[in-house]
Amino acid sequence: MKIALAQINPTVGDLRGNSRKIVETARQAHAQGADLAVFPELCVIGYPPQDLLENPFFLDAAQQALEWIAGQVPPDLGLILGGLVPNTEKTGKRIYNAAFLYEGGRKIAEVHKMLLPTYDVFDEYRHFEPAPAQQVVEWRGMKLGLHICEDLWNNAAEAAFYLYHVNPIDELAAQGADIFINISASPFAIHKHKERTDLIVDSCREHGIPYLFVNQVGANTEIMFDGDTRVHNAEGTPVLCAPLFEEALLMWDTEADYPACERAFSEIKNLHDALVMGIRDYFYKTGAFTKALIGLSGGIDSAVTCALAVEALGPDRVVGVTMPSKYSSSGSVDDSVALAESLGIAFHNIPIKPAVAAFDAMLTDTFAGTEPGVAEENIQARARGVTLMALSNKFGYLLLSTGNKSEMAVGYATLYGDMNGGVAVLIDVLKTRVYRLARYINERAGREVIPENTITKPPSAELRPDQTDQDSLPPYPVLDEILRRYVEEREEVDAIVAATGIDRALVHDILRRVDRNEYKRRQAPPGLRVTMKAFGIGRRLPIVMRWDRTAVEAIAATAEEQG
Amino acid sequence: MKIALAQINPTVGDLRGNSRKIVETARQAHAQGADLAVFPELCVIGYPPQDLLENPFFLDAAQQALEWIAGQVPPDLGLILGGLVPNTEKTGKRIYNAAFLYEGGRKIAEVHKMLLPTYDVFDEYRHFEPAPAQQVVEWRGMKLGLHICEDLWNNAAEAAFYLYHVNPIDELAAQGADIFINISASPFAIHKHKERTDLIVDSCREHGIPYLFVNQVGANTEIMFDGDTRVHNAEGTPVLCAPLFEEALLMWDTEADYPACERAFSEIKNLHDALVMGIRDYFYKTGAFTKALIGLSGGIDSAVTCALAVEALGPDRVVGVTMPSKYSSSGSVDDSVALAESLGIAFHNIPIKPAVAAFDAMLTDTFAGTEPGVAEENIQARARGVTLMALSNKFGYLLLSTGNKSEMAVGYATLYGDMNGGVAVLIDVLKTRVYRLARYINERAGREVIPENTITKPPSAELRPDQTDQDSLPPYPVLDEILRRYVEEREEVDAIVAATGIDRALVHDILRRVDRNEYKRRQAPPGLRVTMKAFGIGRRLPIVMRWDRTAVEAIAATAEEQG
Repeated sequence: MKIALAQINPTVGDLRGNSRKIVETARQAHAQGADLAVFPELCVIGYPPQDLLENPFFLDAAQQALEWIAGQVPPDLGLILGGLVPNTEKTGKRIYNAAFLYEGGRKIAEVHKMLLPTYDVFDEYRHFEPAPAQQVVEWRGMKLGLHICEDLWNNAAEAAFYLYHVNPIDELAAQGADIFINISASPFAIHKHKERTDLIVDSCREHGIPYLFVNQVGANTEIMFDGDTRVHNAEGTPVLCAPLFEEALLMWDTEADYPACERAFSEIKNLHDALVMGIRDYFYKTGAFTKALIGLSGGIDSAVTCALAVEALGPDRVVGVTMPSKYSSSGSVDDSVALAESLGIAFHNIPIKPAVAAFDAMLTDTFAGTEPGVAEENIQARARGVTLMALSNKFGYLLLSTGNKSEMAVGYATLYGDMNGGVAVLIDVLKTRVYRLARYINERAGREVIPENTITKPPSAELRPDQTDQDSLPPYPVLDEILRRYVEEREEVDAIVAATGIDRALVHDILRRVDRNEYKRRQAPPGLRVTMKAFGIGRRLPIVMRWDRTAVEAIAATAEEQG
Repeated sequence: MKIALAQINPTVGDLRGNSRKIVETARQAHAQGADLAVFPELCVIGYPPQDLLENPFFLDAAQQALEWIAGQVPPDLGLILGGLVPNTEKTGKRIYNAAFLYEGGRKIAEVHKMLLPTYDVFDEYRHFEPAPAQQVVEWRGMKLGLHICEDLWNNAAEAAFYLYHVNPIDELAAQGADIFINISASPFAIHKHKERTDLIVDSCREHGIPYLFVNQVGANTEIMFDGDTRVHNAEGTPVLCAPLFEEALLMWDTEADYPACERAFSEIKNLHDALVMGIRDYFYKTGAFTKALIGLSGGIDSAVTCALAVEALGPDRVVGVTMPSKYSSSGSVDDSVALAESLGIAFHNIPIKPAVAAFDAMLTDTFAGTEPGVAEENIQARARGVTLMALSNKFGYLLLSTGNKSEMAVGYATLYGDMNGGVAVLIDVLKTRVYRLARYINERAGREVIPENTITKPPSAELRPDQTDQDSLPPYPVLDEILRRYVEEREEVDAIVAATGIDRALVHDILRRVDRNEYKRRQAPPGLRVTMKAFGIGRRLPIVMRWDRTAVEAIAATAEEQG
């Protein structure tokens, strides 16, 4: 049997576009001799649909689209599609997340997802009823171990703690599956590839069954999908591997032998490619913009964002603007000019002095007797924000926000100022990684795309004379080590101090700053998620709250004092 | 047995403050003769803790706080507290949501929550393992049917569809419970009171058992709790009722007879009181602000927000500022002055003309050859936003955002302009309800708190000459009817047209505008939730998406054309 694995890039909710894409791809697979074409989880809807799933009219339309697709492909092609099934019992959630097998325009089998990820960015139990059991699908003499995404993810060998009470992989193997077929919408994160590989290899080796993994590719709002579609043989060796971050159609012949496929994984290349895809898909899938716009400070974050945007959209669709204030060094404007010339993009220079002077004059009476401080610094950042949004509104530009994860973590950013934007490109990239990205961009191009001076000069917000980031933050390697451990690994003060030797008071202070700045992040633009724990929809914390790490000691002290 | 029902207002994460409050309240209950004092769900942590529950250090501290509390109260007082229990099995979620019975400083019983709300603003299955069964607690000769919040909510008589597969109420009744004791963190919404009453009355009547409902009160970020603690007798009649929106301690004697308690429910009074509580709790629980700041436009939204803030914080803690532009009518400033005088608050007049002129000058070259439009209008709104944030940063003011639900629904608001703020007071209040609130505020005060002219003049954003809201929106009664049905009742075009007779094209256009403006709402401040479906954390929709109601017809047309 020849099976086509279709790594497609659907747009959430675009029933018409996704349906056409599926039909075209299925026809292409058939033309290449496929007996069966396999598409990702919820392929006609796109993942994640979120609360669109609460609209019955939308669900009906999606079901009609699936049936239309089934009627459009050659009748001798088997078609595996992800879709929805109403729960016809009188209890539970209203729908199942399902995989269908169509043949000759008719649905001849369906299976329902058992394991519903409900953590981080996933809310599947919000919408879906879990299936009680799994069932192999017999078709043309083969037993297909068809299952959906997370149904793979309870299969880790020797886990200390299993998130789920059941194991769909084991159930399918016990029923004599000849192959596993997993249809997924499994997001990208740095290092995620290895986790997937470990699980798939374990599944193959434990049961002696080959494994087909078919994943969505592309970005939908903040969630990015790398694809990573592949086939592992019964020994667990990967024998077919799709390219990452682009659409692909693989063909696997169950009767043929394949050599192992080699894929070199580069963390920095994957990060780069993911961000480029994220910008591109946000831009084209919304379809609402003419060009992308970036405020260029001369610093590394805006330079990297700009270079990624040019990679994603081409230089003709990117506009840079420098907005110097009286505190901007001449180097900042020069570095921005050099970057714009290096990238070949349109460039504006709009000094913000008139706006800052106007606000100062407007506020003279009200601010009389106060010392200049954060309020005055933020006026500068916000004057830039207003200028960028004026360009965005006037010309239909997508404003890209450039703040990195380190800044967003500790609140080193101005709400309604430099945080403005439609999408936050680097919000999940720690500052030290931004530097590595800059080096990678230059190495990849074989020339100084990002000016060397932008990479080597001390980072500064330039909101007061001679300011540098290190006036109010520890050096970025130290800050990032604390942040990575706290935000991404969820370590607490004791563990961080023990592992790093960083001063306890500093660790405590940084964690407190992360907690206190939730209010800023709540109003940040959606940002491209590239780690297992990004700020945004996968990290949900209260704004009004008084969690204080000293509370335990305080309670003990109170106990003593009250005797 | 005398049972005290403690309707307390905890702050999320404030282990120290919440613990002290619980101990003080328990001692007071004991002094009044209570044998047993009952506190709300997760009372020492506060609800909703969200992903604080993913921090083991926090969970340990919360457990220590509970044990400290138990040791601080008189040993002969029984104490029912909401807390957490680790899942000691090797599978499932890591913790249970639990209710404990303490006596003499020791935990003598615990029950775990079975039904975990995972819809709208609730994410309980994200964190909690559901309990497989329920068990009555025998104590001092009584069988206590102790359970937690949602465990009540599968008990509706003759429901068409049950969300859960089990019914804890029935289980407890079958085990011979003498009383039901429900500890809750059950949010307020308009009309929620009736739903609660129906469920409780059903439970009492079906089983002939009295029902104690003990709920948290107060606001935590966007979620508001009315309290509504009460006792219904075995016939279902309410016999003790706590006041709404404030802390209270009720005492119920199981041996005594009580007459029915009467509570008049006024939708508009509850809405008013909820919003006042929401402002007050945001202000004092964050503890980060000196005063509240409101930009006064002369319009009804800012006037109502300002009046509510004065009710919440007192006139000395509220500052109003009018920021006229060249398009502002003289009436707008006059109405703002009249409002500020009527409320007795500090007031600034800061014309934005200098800032607008500065931006116009800065953008002259770049905008050359374009017609004035939305970009220029938004510059005005954003110049006000910068001014308000400058005052906020300089003086530590909490900026209250004043946009209503109707505007936020259709995107009739400027991102980084009038949307700026720490909390959005009216974001869940449709414009027609804002008018009713204004009338209520004046009636309640017995004087013209909000100037009559503000209530009666045509609403206008005043961003261009002679502009009114109805230039780009249908009349608010029509708009609100569409929005209420689509957003709150989740009706689609056909149903709305059938029920209202409103023009189909208009309905279609409004629904499309709601969908398309998700990107603005994603960056809105957290807002006070007062309906069963508010914008914000309980309504999760993709920004990058192409759901289009005409897709079904389009697919059919494609089918035909491709034949």
